[in-house]
Amino acid sequence: MFQKLLIANRGEIAVRIIRACHEMGILTVAVFSEPDREALHVKMADEAVCIGSAAAKDSYLNMDRILNAALITNAQAIHPGFGFLSENDQFAEKCQDWGVVFVGPSSELIRKMGNKSVAKETMRQAGIPVIEGSKEPVFDNKEALRQAEKIGFPVMVKAAFGGGGKGMRIVSEKSEFESLFRLAQQEAVRSFGDSTMYLEKYIQNPRHVEVQIVADSFGNVICLGERDCSVQRRHQKMIEESPCTVLEDETRLRLHEAAVEAAKAVGYESAGTVEFLCDSDGNFYFMEMNTRIQVEHPVSEAVTGVDLIREQIRVASGLPLSKRQEEVFVRGHAIECRINAEDPQQNFSPCPGKVEYLHIPGGKGVRVDTAMESGSEILPYYDSMIVKIIVHEQNRELALQKMRCALKEFQIRGVRTNRDFLEKILNEPDFCEGKVTTGYLEKHFN
Amino acid sequence: MFQKLLIANRGEIAVRIIRACHEMGILTVAVFSEPDREALHVKMADEAVCIGSAAAKDSYLNMDRILNAALITNAQAIHPGFGFLSENDQFAEKCQDWGVVFVGPSSELIRKMGNKSVAKETMRQAGIPVIEGSKEPVFDNKEALRQAEKIGFPVMVKAAFGGGGKGMRIVSEKSEFESLFRLAQQEAVRSFGDSTMYLEKYIQNPRHVEVQIVADSFGNVICLGERDCSVQRRHQKMIEESPCTVLEDETRLRLHEAAVEAAKAVGYESAGTVEFLCDSDGNFYFMEMNTRIQVEHPVSEAVTGVDLIREQIRVASGLPLSKRQEEVFVRGHAIECRINAEDPQQNFSPCPGKVEYLHIPGGKGVRVDTAMESGSEILPYYDSMIVKIIVHEQNRELALQKMRCALKEFQIRGVRTNRDFLEKILNEPDFCEGKVTTGYLEKHFN
Repeated sequence: MFQKLLIANRGEIAVRIIRACHEMGILTVAVFSEPDREALHVKMADEAVCIGSAAAKDSYLNMDRILNAALITNAQAIHPGFGFLSENDQFAEKCQDWGVVFVGPSSELIRKMGNKSVAKETMRQAGIPVIEGSKEPVFDNKEALRQAEKIGFPVMVKAAFGGGGKGMRIVSEKSEFESLFRLAQQEAVRSFGDSTMYLEKYIQNPRHVEVQIVADSFGNVICLGERDCSVQRRHQKMIEESPCTVLEDETRLRLHEAAVEAAKAVGYESAGTVEFLCDSDGNFYFMEMNTRIQVEHPVSEAVTGVDLIREQIRVASGLPLSKRQEEVFVRGHAIECRINAEDPQQNFSPCPGKVEYLHIPGGKGVRVDTAMESGSEILPYYDSMIVKIIVHEQNRELALQKMRCALKEFQIRGVRTNRDFLEKILNEPDFCEGKVTTGYLEKHFN
Repeated sequence: MFQKLLIANRGEIAVRIIRACHEMGILTVAVFSEPDREALHVKMADEAVCIGSAAAKDSYLNMDRILNAALITNAQAIHPGFGFLSENDQFAEKCQDWGVVFVGPSSELIRKMGNKSVAKETMRQAGIPVIEGSKEPVFDNKEALRQAEKIGFPVMVKAAFGGGGKGMRIVSEKSEFESLFRLAQQEAVRSFGDSTMYLEKYIQNPRHVEVQIVADSFGNVICLGERDCSVQRRHQKMIEESPCTVLEDETRLRLHEAAVEAAKAVGYESAGTVEFLCDSDGNFYFMEMNTRIQVEHPVSEAVTGVDLIREQIRVASGLPLSKRQEEVFVRGHAIECRINAEDPQQNFSPCPGKVEYLHIPGGKGVRVDTAMESGSEILPYYDSMIVKIIVHEQNRELALQKMRCALKEFQIRGVRTNRDFLEKILNEPDFCEGKVTTGYLEKHFN
């Protein structure tokens, strides 16, 4: 096992990883940007290295500085968390070149799954159901329209190297196509520096259901159940649950098998998520594979008891998974709410500032992952997601009630958050009945 | 179900009960003494009533004021928590007289189990193994000595209405008897206003193992496993675990059966704990029954998933238990550490004061029950136990490691605590190997 590991991240996920390392007896190195000097992840780590100024490109995205920090401190491995460099194949490759273990899959695998059209083609060949779409990347508006007509409207236009909802448009009919394709492509260039697009059939009223898997270097792949992440705003998840209660047992089984098959087909290693769109007839379609730990991983931890970060680190160090599939049971129901420092009244624009007072909920079945404390600064340079509340109960109804209470107990002064908005969702009848598709938020809260 | 419930307590247990009520849709009334005006339990409750000045006798022990607060606010039930009035049969009786539901067993039952010698005689008659001891209460030193010689040394001298280690002495030989009996009796008078004593055979190197049960008014009794609470300082528990890993399965089964039998024998209702002393040969002896929720209840909640406070409230409102015995499973291992505001260097004397800064640990499998925040006042009038850290893991080894990390992460400034002392225990080889008896702390840390 590693003696020392560097966390190339900040905020709650850095704190989460530090905790896992300490439990495994691994020393931790935090990296931080100048304004993050007093951040909790810096205080909690055994060592900390300043890697640059506020802008992510100068610090948390600066590969060489992070690798240098690892070398200086003799860290044998780097955990990238999520966001930042977590799905950057170049970084994974550089880690290998510099002799530092990247906690995640190989750079080749990240590259393969990072290119959405290659990923889909790979899965199609492995027999996983995939949404009909363009087989080749498209760049040209005219060619794209031709393919769209072949697939049939509505179609989804997507940036091949995208994520987080950027560079994406739904096109309902031919007349809208040219302008929306152009908009999506322009956004793709701005956000990811790449104009490669692809198209796919748009599934109406689907659920976003994703399957958590973990794989080791001995060919073992286990499935830790699925998560329903249909409550999304502009493709940003807001509430996640496990299990997805509306799935028929038979569909759930096929879904899990497909995810394990997908992981095996590409020789996956580490924790990963296979995302599917599910329609109401029990069909599901591979969307993409996330080759990293996800924000919503704690709901799977709650229902299975498996510590995903510990498994990632075990696997990266060459150890086998700590559990076999037969030892994994999904028990009860878990829900996560993401608290963001943002103003729902102002179109959810980020609200950085000083947290004057923070009271986080607690008690039986309530987990709060955060790097915030009373007095913390929420910086404008980084993600506005500041607190994750996770509840675990015997069933969905009790979990919903526990989450309502936890949200009510959660108190923050000094910055605006989406807490009240989350409370509204938790009390909205369709949500309470589990009638949720990816269009849910837009439909109910425009 | 009740619409409104009053919590006749303060601190973390009041917060704990408020959370359970909110999850059940029950409005809450906090009561508070003047210096507790800004306390968390007051902030979290839906209503709050000041019931008097700092001294417990003028507030949290003042039955009439508490009952008046219930009447004024239309609270239909009172949860007494632990300590204060929780095992006061007079209070339970008064509640009944005033038409308020006391969340706990009947006053008769509290009285019966509160008198240790009556309790033991009751259990002996029900066929539960009981330590040999005086059948009748003793008051007189000479008569006590006669009985002690009959039982055989070493004997334990105990206050009949005692608790928390007060009014208790171990007498190894005849020559010590008179003086130690006198000391214990004086302490009993000072602490409980009663000089009734009893004697029992002293079991050498026993474990303190207690069984959690919950019973409803329909005659259902379920067992939620046992807790090993052998790490005690002057009969005050410091670390509690569930399950007790050294018990043979066959002994565990007999122990659970005895606890359920004990509860049935007295027609118990509500949550209760049957405390046993266990020797290393698989024998166990009934010590006493606690007719209330206990400080250490969260370890049983962690391993079974059952919410004990919710069950108490359900049962008090006339509902049946939410689970049958066949639905209860003990999974993994849980440990609780009690953080007290006290100075281990100064013979563990209480250290009240202002909490300048508090960071509580969190993450997967870590629960912290507390009413403290940065800026809170620890008052000198009440118990010094301010924070409970509970961890839950797959086995004892992992739970120990998680607790070590949680204790390390726990940070408090402004007051002294026993945190470092707890850390020492968590790293002491005998403790780590589970070689713990009630004499453990004295032996290893005199």
